[in-house]
Amino acid sequence: MGGWHEQKLRVRYEETDTMGVVYYAKYFVWMEVGRVALMRDAGFGYKEWVRHELEFPVVQAHAEYKAPAVFDDEVLVKTKIAHIGNSSIRYENEIYKLPDMTLLAIGHTVHVLTSRGGEKVPFTPELKERLTSA
Amino acid sequence: MGGWHEQKLRVRYEETDTMGVVYYAKYFVWMEVGRVALMRDAGFGYKEWVRHELEFPVVQAHAEYKAPAVFDDEVLVKTKIAHIGNSSIRYENEIYKLPDMTLLAIGHTVHVLTSRGGEKVPFTPELKERLTSA
Amino acid sequence: MGGWHEQKLRVRYEETDTMGVVYYAKYFVWMEVGRVALMRDAGFGYKEWVRHELEFPVVQAHAEYKAPAVFDDEVLVKTKIAHIGNSSIRYENEIYKLPDMTLLAIGHTVHVLTSRGGEKVPFTPELKERLTSA
Amino acid sequence: MGGWHEQKLRVRYEETDTMGVVYYAKYFVWMEVGRVALMRDAGFGYKEWVRHELEFPVVQAHAEYKAPAVFDDEVLVKTKIAHIGNSSIRYENEIYKLPDMTLLAIGHTVHVLTSRGGEKVPFTPELKERLTSA
Repeated sequence: MGGWHEQKLRVRYEETDTMGVVYYAKYFVWMEVGRVALMRDAGFGYKEWVRHELEFPVVQAHAEYKAPAVFDDEVLVKTKIAHIGNSSIRYENEIYKLPDMTLLAIGHTVHVLTSRGGEKVPFTPELKERLTSA
Repeated sequence: MGGWHEQKLRVRYEETDTMGVVYYAKYFVWMEVGRVALMRDAGFGYKEWVRHELEFPVVQAHAEYKAPAVFDDEVLVKTKIAHIGNSSIRYENEIYKLPDMTLLAIGHTVHVLTSRGGEKVPFTPELKERLTSA
Repeated sequence: MGGWHEQKLRVRYEETDTMGVVYYAKYFVWMEVGRVALMRDAGFGYKEWVRHELEFPVVQAHAEYKAPAVFDDEVLVKTKIAHIGNSSIRYENEIYKLPDMTLLAIGHTVHVLTSRGGEKVPFTPELKERLTSA
Repeated sequence: MGGWHEQKLRVRYEETDTMGVVYYAKYFVWMEVGRVALMRDAGFGYKEWVRHELEFPVVQAHAEYKAPAVFDDEVLVKTKIAHIGNSSIRYENEIYKLPDMTLLAIGHTVHVLTSRGGEKVPFTPELKERLTSA
């Protein structure tokens, strides 16, 4: 669907562990940073979610780790919308180490669109359009 | 005021960093675990806060680090209520490594009691009594 | 292979997010807590890894979220070893809310066994035996 | 001593809690991001620490919270070196919400300079000079 959105970040000391590499669960935080940045750039930032009283709880999360990152590495988080269903959305991620673009991890997450009360809500054609043309 | 409340926990891999020791900010998470356990044992657990529509935002946090903890260490978090003001509460903590009781850190936090809307609320005499006799 | 190992834990305030539920990446931290506890109970705790100069980097992580957990919930993390390959190991997890055993999430992780230098190392028959009979 | 170093960052969903604001311990992670960026800009980035086999364990951490930050806020972390002793260094921080520069928190951390083995090491005049003129 849409193209790859790119977001740079820098590995924090807090994100590393005793092995001296980034702890595996932190990649899911980076994937969140990528998704939120993609949404913001598509004109659907957090203030819009709140205004529409929408939330995006995660129903599936997956990552495959290819190479480790260490403290202070600069990292590129690539995110794209791979699919929008009736009330679900699937993001895919590729995470690279800069500047040499070593692939660190690939992953995806699937979310449902809900009201603040937790009820599933369908994507409006307008929102679908805005996100897929991002 | 009240006596020391004790809460054991085990160091998680996620809590360690590249130096192979527990990352400094994680001690504040443990201090939270200690406070919440103290409050629960005083009969003022989270469901009570929600029922009374109360919150305890932190206004000050302090820690001094004496010795490092490593992955899988068992740790004892001691917490006591050092002071209750009109609408403020001060907890103090001592954190030890088990079984030899090496002192890892001391610290304190100060909180205000607020309504869910963020307005300061005074401690009722009853709540003050319940917490200080804990 | 082995049976389910069970580990209880309590949701920390730090683990929750603006939706008022546990943030999705935290489930992977809980899965780590489950794996480590299983290994410890199988007589292969962290001190043993260090003594054998072994590490278990994650190569795959997956979770499916069924229901949300909130602050202060008591949670049961079930972990089992689903497969041991030449130098890989697959853990599976089921995470429940107590006391009613609502299923919160299922997941799995795959790890490779490496030396501290990062070289793949085969499981010895003895270690394989110890883990699968756990 | 040195002037204020400025580092922008964006609040992550992971950093918020059930109150809908940034969890108090996360400010210490931001203070770390500020310190590391200051050091990097002073020509003493992480690769230099490793090359000199130096570490900077924290011995004291303090924060005072003035106003809450919420998800997706842009934040300015100001960091300066307030004092360099024989083998200790004190950083001070001010954290603001952008664009209106609401003060969110002030804080400081004190660190000792050690070898990788944990022995205290004095600052060389050259390193002291490089950091204070940053």
